[in-house]
Amino acid sequence: MTQVPLPPVPSPEVTAGGIVTFRLRAPEARAVTVRNTTGGYGDWPSGNDVPMTRDAEGVWSATIGPLVPEYYTYVFVLDGVHALDPGNTLYMRDGIRYSSSLRVPGELSSLYDINDVPHGTLHQVWYPSPSLNLTRRMYVYTPPGYEESEERYPVFYLLHGGGNDEDGWTNLGRAPQILDNLIAQGKTRPMIVVMTNGNGTLPAAPDTVPVPPGYQRPAPGTYILKFADSIVPDVIPYVDAHYRTLADREHRAIAGLSMGGAQTLYCAFRHLDQFAWVSAFSAGLPLLPGVPVDIPAPANAAQLRGPDITKTIDPHKFAELVTHLDPGANARLRMFHLAIGTLDGLISAHATLKSLLDERGVRYTVAEVPGYAHEWRFWRLSLADTVQRLFQPA
Amino acid sequence: MTQVPLPPVPSPEVTAGGIVTFRLRAPEARAVTVRNTTGGYGDWPSGNDVPMTRDAEGVWSATIGPLVPEYYTYVFVLDGVHALDPGNTLYMRDGIRYSSSLRVPGELSSLYDINDVPHGTLHQVWYPSPSLNLTRRMYVYTPPGYEESEERYPVFYLLHGGGNDEDGWTNLGRAPQILDNLIAQGKTRPMIVVMTNGNGTLPAAPDTVPVPPGYQRPAPGTYILKFADSIVPDVIPYVDAHYRTLADREHRAIAGLSMGGAQTLYCAFRHLDQFAWVSAFSAGLPLLPGVPVDIPAPANAAQLRGPDITKTIDPHKFAELVTHLDPGANARLRMFHLAIGTLDGLISAHATLKSLLDERGVRYTVAEVPGYAHEWRFWRLSLADTVQRLFQPA
Repeated sequence: MTQVPLPPVPSPEVTAGGIVTFRLRAPEARAVTVRNTTGGYGDWPSGNDVPMTRDAEGVWSATIGPLVPEYYTYVFVLDGVHALDPGNTLYMRDGIRYSSSLRVPGELSSLYDINDVPHGTLHQVWYPSPSLNLTRRMYVYTPPGYEESEERYPVFYLLHGGGNDEDGWTNLGRAPQILDNLIAQGKTRPMIVVMTNGNGTLPAAPDTVPVPPGYQRPAPGTYILKFADSIVPDVIPYVDAHYRTLADREHRAIAGLSMGGAQTLYCAFRHLDQFAWVSAFSAGLPLLPGVPVDIPAPANAAQLRGPDITKTIDPHKFAELVTHLDPGANARLRMFHLAIGTLDGLISAHATLKSLLDERGVRYTVAEVPGYAHEWRFWRLSLADTVQRLFQPA
Repeated sequence: MTQVPLPPVPSPEVTAGGIVTFRLRAPEARAVTVRNTTGGYGDWPSGNDVPMTRDAEGVWSATIGPLVPEYYTYVFVLDGVHALDPGNTLYMRDGIRYSSSLRVPGELSSLYDINDVPHGTLHQVWYPSPSLNLTRRMYVYTPPGYEESEERYPVFYLLHGGGNDEDGWTNLGRAPQILDNLIAQGKTRPMIVVMTNGNGTLPAAPDTVPVPPGYQRPAPGTYILKFADSIVPDVIPYVDAHYRTLADREHRAIAGLSMGGAQTLYCAFRHLDQFAWVSAFSAGLPLLPGVPVDIPAPANAAQLRGPDITKTIDPHKFAELVTHLDPGANARLRMFHLAIGTLDGLISAHATLKSLLDERGVRYTVAEVPGYAHEWRFWRLSLADTVQRLFQPA
């Protein structure tokens, strides 16, 4: 079966106005669509496949837009199966899903670009985790100038969501670029950012660790808090011993998205002696004891998108968190911020959390942002917002 | 067009004996094959698509093997278009091509695995390159124990091939794993390994740098030696200033594969004051002045596989190299080693290079290994062989 491959057709083609044309040479295919896998709504809703049309030479194409400047992900669906765009060298990995990446240039996406500014260094580090009985991998970002200075820096622990790995924030999250760009603009203080693997039974992302084919994530409820319990005894001492950190709670922050948001709340409130800055993005705690499990569906239920984290959180362990939600936190936390998109499926759980915090007298700030769902577009924005608030003078 | 996705079928399934079954659910597809994209021959020849057969539920499957223990790459070809295996979380990127990754466990592949041994740290670093007028990205591997010691280490500059980027050796090449494992076995001396981006007109791998869609590599002949010319003035001083190196030629090695092999020869022989250890994997220099461009096809031409690097090397610049090939090198080089697979398309160019070296009286050692073509299987082995030779006492 010999084939002489033809060169890939240009795809994606992006005009200045954000009009995008996708093309795929597939003369044998019966049907091809282009699917937004970005996860949200915006001006190109995820899940709405755009049909592509075939020309006489077997090249399929579709034109959409204008799209707002952002990083999108997409795949072609070819006779029912996902395929990357062979004309596109850019991709993003979201857990086990690979998508081609589409950048629509503009002011917002430039915050996520590698620009001509000083760059930090990204360290892929293995650290011992006695609590988990594993040597584990994490990423540590040190800011531009770290190697040339003798300065000590504040540290931001940044946790990913369910289904991601230690490279979630560096790949889909564009964290090194966001930090580089905001530091260059003078909008955020140079800091060390530590990006761990939140799946407590794994040493590292499965893409490089030899795991058996057909690898399955550990059983729900068993691994989310195991990792959260290892942050203070295992991760922080390693980071403080190996990097020039300001090793006190005033210079230590923690935040996370979705599952990582739940881990953040659990870890931070049990260890207020360790963290003065806390934020959760798209987190909810639907299984707090005494809180009804059956959260009523909100009015816009059909529009909501997000995981059902009620299935993956161990309610018995989370019960410990509740005892720590007391107004004593108010004097200790320099920031306690909750961010969520109003189209996120966890918006009800978020409301439940707010009610509980109000009831306990714990103060927080909140950003409930219209138009965003449970998606990386929102978490990138939340990261950019957060790092501009952290470690500011009182 | 609403779809309820079914769970992926188990794929690939590897039995203890190295028998592999691939499966893909694709009820709408007309024809599906599985294609080895590893690049060589071995017991599963690249380019030989294995037809898959469809069952009543639309799941296609094929069983092959036994395969020898190795890391392979493959794609499904679905109605003529490449698709990753949705059942497989492991992948490898080779330039613009993405493939699913298949590990057949055994003694050889365990050298490439992440094992329970001490791990080095991988640094993703940006360095200024005044010669190229760019800030550029590279990977620096520091060996296990580097952070805890005050020791200085020898440095190995390791260059990738045409079409790869700075992550070629860390991704397809498994360099961090090979070093970790051989250091743990006491077979190689702990060393720093520097993996640059050899494409002199690029700051970094295009998968993360915003390049226009339809990005094309620079014109042939313009960029290979620009980078090689930047190693001594730009890369080495940065590494020596930022890492605890043994900063002399006795403790500095350089090697590369294919295009990187040509860059290695060009850089090392023009700078014998900088390097005492030199190796080229699958390199050839067909365009040396005075050497016929039309190399006669060898007897096994139909079997050979490799790039035509005559199209990408500037002969005028390489002319400078020839003047440096003199027997004075013999007393200065602690190692000068050429490695190539006998099925590599560059085997004739390799023979031409050997003739030229013989004529000039430059001594070298050589490994011409049967059964290997122009492929990562061979370069991983060559790396493992090389690091066991480097920096040994005289």
